[in-house]
Amino acid sequence: MSKRRIAILAEGQFNWQDAKTAVGVLRYSTDDVVAVIDSTRAGQDAAMALGDPNGAGRGVPIVASVAEALTRDPDTLLIGIAPIGGRLPEAWRGEVVAALAAGLNLVSGLHHMLAEDAELADVARRHGTQIWDVRRPSEALAMRIRAGTPHRAGSHVVYFCGTDCNVGKMTAAIELDLEAKRRGLSSGFAPTGQTGIMIAGEGIPADRFISDFLPGGVEGMVLDFAERYDWVFVEGQGSLIHPAYSAVTLGLIHGAAPDLLVLCHQANRTHIHGYDVPIPPLARMREIYEQAAGWLKPARVVAVAVNTYGLPEDEARDALAAAERETGLPASDPVRFGAGPLLDALGAR
Amino acid sequence: MSKRRIAILAEGQFNWQDAKTAVGVLRYSTDDVVAVIDSTRAGQDAAMALGDPNGAGRGVPIVASVAEALTRDPDTLLIGIAPIGGRLPEAWRGEVVAALAAGLNLVSGLHHMLAEDAELADVARRHGTQIWDVRRPSEALAMRIRAGTPHRAGSHVVYFCGTDCNVGKMTAAIELDLEAKRRGLSSGFAPTGQTGIMIAGEGIPADRFISDFLPGGVEGMVLDFAERYDWVFVEGQGSLIHPAYSAVTLGLIHGAAPDLLVLCHQANRTHIHGYDVPIPPLARMREIYEQAAGWLKPARVVAVAVNTYGLPEDEARDALAAAERETGLPASDPVRFGAGPLLDALGAR
Repeated sequence: MSKRRIAILAEGQFNWQDAKTAVGVLRYSTDDVVAVIDSTRAGQDAAMALGDPNGAGRGVPIVASVAEALTRDPDTLLIGIAPIGGRLPEAWRGEVVAALAAGLNLVSGLHHMLAEDAELADVARRHGTQIWDVRRPSEALAMRIRAGTPHRAGSHVVYFCGTDCNVGKMTAAIELDLEAKRRGLSSGFAPTGQTGIMIAGEGIPADRFISDFLPGGVEGMVLDFAERYDWVFVEGQGSLIHPAYSAVTLGLIHGAAPDLLVLCHQANRTHIHGYDVPIPPLARMREIYEQAAGWLKPARVVAVAVNTYGLPEDEARDALAAAERETGLPASDPVRFGAGPLLDALGAR
Repeated sequence: MSKRRIAILAEGQFNWQDAKTAVGVLRYSTDDVVAVIDSTRAGQDAAMALGDPNGAGRGVPIVASVAEALTRDPDTLLIGIAPIGGRLPEAWRGEVVAALAAGLNLVSGLHHMLAEDAELADVARRHGTQIWDVRRPSEALAMRIRAGTPHRAGSHVVYFCGTDCNVGKMTAAIELDLEAKRRGLSSGFAPTGQTGIMIAGEGIPADRFISDFLPGGVEGMVLDFAERYDWVFVEGQGSLIHPAYSAVTLGLIHGAAPDLLVLCHQANRTHIHGYDVPIPPLARMREIYEQAAGWLKPARVVAVAVNTYGLPEDEARDALAAAERETGLPASDPVRFGAGPLLDALGAR
């Protein structure tokens, strides 16, 4: 498959807090990102705008409009913004139409399905371009009831469980997959969220599944990955202690039926984001995940991935040491200090 | 609100195993059921057909067709069958059209939404009748994110948790609600499945919610019930050890945020229906539910509801004694031996 040339629409949101999808694609996609569109930051280099001149987005220009992005010869417009309500802002409709009319394919992570938008679907049809709504569950998995089928013998399924949303579960899963591949292992990253799906080109949008069918959808994906790879790194979602999303988390754990768990945490986060719910000590989080897995198929937490983004190096190392002390398990920040110790703990050599 | 006069469509399925919805409505609806439609059992009395001449359905005739049911002057046709695939069988389309054309309202628990069926919607509009798809989440609750709002002080929320699907959770919740009302308490039954919704006229279809919004939808319903009633009996779904539906169960528990739990079990059931998963001892099931509740808000199992349907009386009493011995908690079959001991255990006097 040839590389896509992607322009990312991130209007007004191209910063570390809000542009999770854009940053993920810039950092991990094997396609080429040729431009980021955010009129509020036009003229900057994407890496500079994110605060790390040598980080993701280095050499990628931020432009003000789709028209300007077209001068960089993209073949795909990727909508990386997440507006309130999940709909395409009307102000951007004309721009998206212009991209389709210029022959670009469209990749969208919006809740609102763009392929069902009469105008956009019509323009795409007339110009022979594709609209891919990554949040639409595939027909094969959308209404699958979980069967409890064992994975291929010899495969190892690893689930990345978190203390909260947005602590680095996807990043940890991708970093372990990349490190396993560097070690020459047969390894695959199994995405369960829109950003992961955009990066990998496959996966399931867990948050759009009807409750009854989530574990079956996850099982279907994992059975397929376990046929293809010896090591399957399943992106986790939410947290079992999250007041709103714990059910999604349990659906993924029971659906994936992992052999091993990696606990993911962001250093210095003390409460569930947006809620008055304290995050308990990591040893208690480990116990909670092992309880839940154990109801159906026992699995142990064997390592801790700590996201130390923004901390000075000494504080980052202190955070890892604290995590190891609290849990008695190896800990690393896979972005900053490498995924090696975590892979070692899994026995993936 | 005046009583409805209901004809229940249960074609080919009017028996204890398959007609859960029809039996539930016959037993608990405060409306009048004037006929059951099942051509394979036409001419029988509904109670006789269910095997208990003095039980639910006594005096309700089984007829062969909608036309025949119309002679009993119904104002509502309730679709109580659950065909494979969740669609209206084509053989019954003409009958349903005839009912709408005769001025009957339509209540459907099918997965396929009948109000979206062009022909049925058109007939209903022309004849001024209503189509109510009970499996459609209400607009107010369908995309609600859980907030973690405390219930009204003085309210008591009770969740009915099960060892498996279809063990009697809805029945136990309704029986406790009825017994609480007999005791003069302020009490409400909060349904989470299609049969409960048909009986109570309100509630949420948990199995149709998008995963992200299930806990929020449950919370929205329970907050409302806790404003209106001192005792709120929340119908449970599935089981935390169910290979396919555990996520729905956790979404209900964390969404309802109960103060107390009642464990529901069917005597002599040893495995999850349809799966090679043994049901552990009741004391272990109690521990599992208390673990899960405790991650967010501690709640204790305080009583066990045992469904002894079909057992001779001595075996039924043995099953209750065994449940009490295993758990150290009061046990009763609320249908057979009364809900009193269970209400006492909740402290609802």
